[in-house]
Amino acid sequence: MMEKLLVVATIAYDAIETPFDKVPKVLGGAATYIALAASKFKINCGLVSVIGYDFEDHHLELLRNNLINCDGIELIKAGKTFFWSGKYHDNMNIRTTLYTELNVVEKFTPKIPKYYLDSKVLMIGNLDPRVQLEALVQVKNNAEFIMLDTMNFWIKNSRDILDEVISKVDLICVNDEESRLLTNEVSLINAGAKIQKMGPDYVIIKKGENGSILFGDNKIFVTPAFPVNNVIDPTGAGDSFAGGIAGFLSNNSINFENIKKSIVYGTVLASFTVESFGVDSLEKVSNIELQKRLNKFKDLTSF
Amino acid sequence: MMEKLLVVATIAYDAIETPFDKVPKVLGGAATYIALAASKFKINCGLVSVIGYDFEDHHLELLRNNLINCDGIELIKAGKTFFWSGKYHDNMNIRTTLYTELNVVEKFTPKIPKYYLDSKVLMIGNLDPRVQLEALVQVKNNAEFIMLDTMNFWIKNSRDILDEVISKVDLICVNDEESRLLTNEVSLINAGAKIQKMGPDYVIIKKGENGSILFGDNKIFVTPAFPVNNVIDPTGAGDSFAGGIAGFLSNNSINFENIKKSIVYGTVLASFTVESFGVDSLEKVSNIELQKRLNKFKDLTSF
Repeated sequence: MMEKLLVVATIAYDAIETPFDKVPKVLGGAATYIALAASKFKINCGLVSVIGYDFEDHHLELLRNNLINCDGIELIKAGKTFFWSGKYHDNMNIRTTLYTELNVVEKFTPKIPKYYLDSKVLMIGNLDPRVQLEALVQVKNNAEFIMLDTMNFWIKNSRDILDEVISKVDLICVNDEESRLLTNEVSLINAGAKIQKMGPDYVIIKKGENGSILFGDNKIFVTPAFPVNNVIDPTGAGDSFAGGIAGFLSNNSINFENIKKSIVYGTVLASFTVESFGVDSLEKVSNIELQKRLNKFKDLTSF
Repeated sequence: MMEKLLVVATIAYDAIETPFDKVPKVLGGAATYIALAASKFKINCGLVSVIGYDFEDHHLELLRNNLINCDGIELIKAGKTFFWSGKYHDNMNIRTTLYTELNVVEKFTPKIPKYYLDSKVLMIGNLDPRVQLEALVQVKNNAEFIMLDTMNFWIKNSRDILDEVISKVDLICVNDEESRLLTNEVSLINAGAKIQKMGPDYVIIKKGENGSILFGDNKIFVTPAFPVNNVIDPTGAGDSFAGGIAGFLSNNSINFENIKKSIVYGTVLASFTVESFGVDSLEKVSNIELQKRLNKFKDLTSF
């Protein structure tokens, strides 16, 4: 029987502008990127999310074609799908959110299908901490490993409940800015250590094109990003990274060495994501291409 | 006979302010950091630089105690030593130059001692490209490997002569911002490739606390920085990095694999430098501590 990974996160449509190009509407959302990245592994991945009346059938088909179980995706016919619009500046490392239409996400309460209540891994994407907590309550202590993402907005505006959520998870994945905001530490090394004290055994600090740092078991693992010639759109890179980690760990025993390996998978999967707008290039990655780039990454980084 | 490394660069006094502390006057300058880092290797390192009447004897002693040959350091009694003052912001990744007093550097013409004209490696630090060219003219084609550093100011104001200098060196070491300014490329991968076309077989793009990228022989090597808990003062990190590279390569055959290794040495030496103001912690590093941190770096980065 295949191991189960449950992903609770948003599905969205995105409008994205970069210094070189723009798209008015592509499939996006953390759930989409996480699940597509995780689907590269031989696991049973279920999505819990919400969509509106405007969600296009062929996008559900895209998920199902990648063997992602969509039973937990609620359709709210009275509303539109979550819509996010963002603009990337300069060297693509800085982005501004132009507007966020929460739409159906505003009323979202996760309803986890019974079948996924005993998933080995639970990955909770960036959401209102109240919604994240609701997912935790439903899963109880059934999951072997719980991963969490969050963002500045919740760190600033829902700190108490976010802290409660953080205290209940095994791994939190935040970016450098978020880690500093969470801890008031300038040094990422100190920030990582401080977040561990908030509960999670493992902390990953993402640094975009500069790679990531893993903290856990009194050890650290630092890794650069996979160098990409031509970054088209960074949207979803962090979620693809997390999805690669969640996917790999669903299929393997969970310890520091395997989390390191999972980070390498996540790093490489994220490098595909940034090579197109939306999920196009991530979805198309074959096992052979993934393996090839993993080997190349090994080559690029070992000495 | 020991291999020779010739370093042509500035010696300075620095006034440095960080968010946490400040010092009114410490020994600094690219030459100082480069030579002290390089002196960790069994090589004969000679410095060509200039100092003023205010330069303190015990600072020359410090260099000599580290077996750095100071015959090429000119004393101009009519002037003061180069003085630089800078302030670090926020997370120490951004700095502002408060003031620069060129002093004796304004009249500096390198006079390379005959004994060092056949050095295996020539490292030319950040200087007016006219001065850099003068060093190249004196050394002619005697050096096996020539390394170069520069900065934004020369890229903006002395582009023609800088381009001539760049075309004559084997390796250039610039930071991410400088690489983008040199090439008008956003992507560092593209920037690295473009700089190679300007002449150097090897290009290193430094990313401060985010490591570095090496380009050469149609290959790339990416490496993170060594994670440091408590960065006291980043001044000199880039020069220590370059000094580690120059020192290692002076002692080894020059090829892509060894440049990779040299970068690891440079990375680790830079991590010591940032742990104190000035050269204190860099100077004190013993072979055992260096080896220990190299092993730790291997451990932190391998998967």
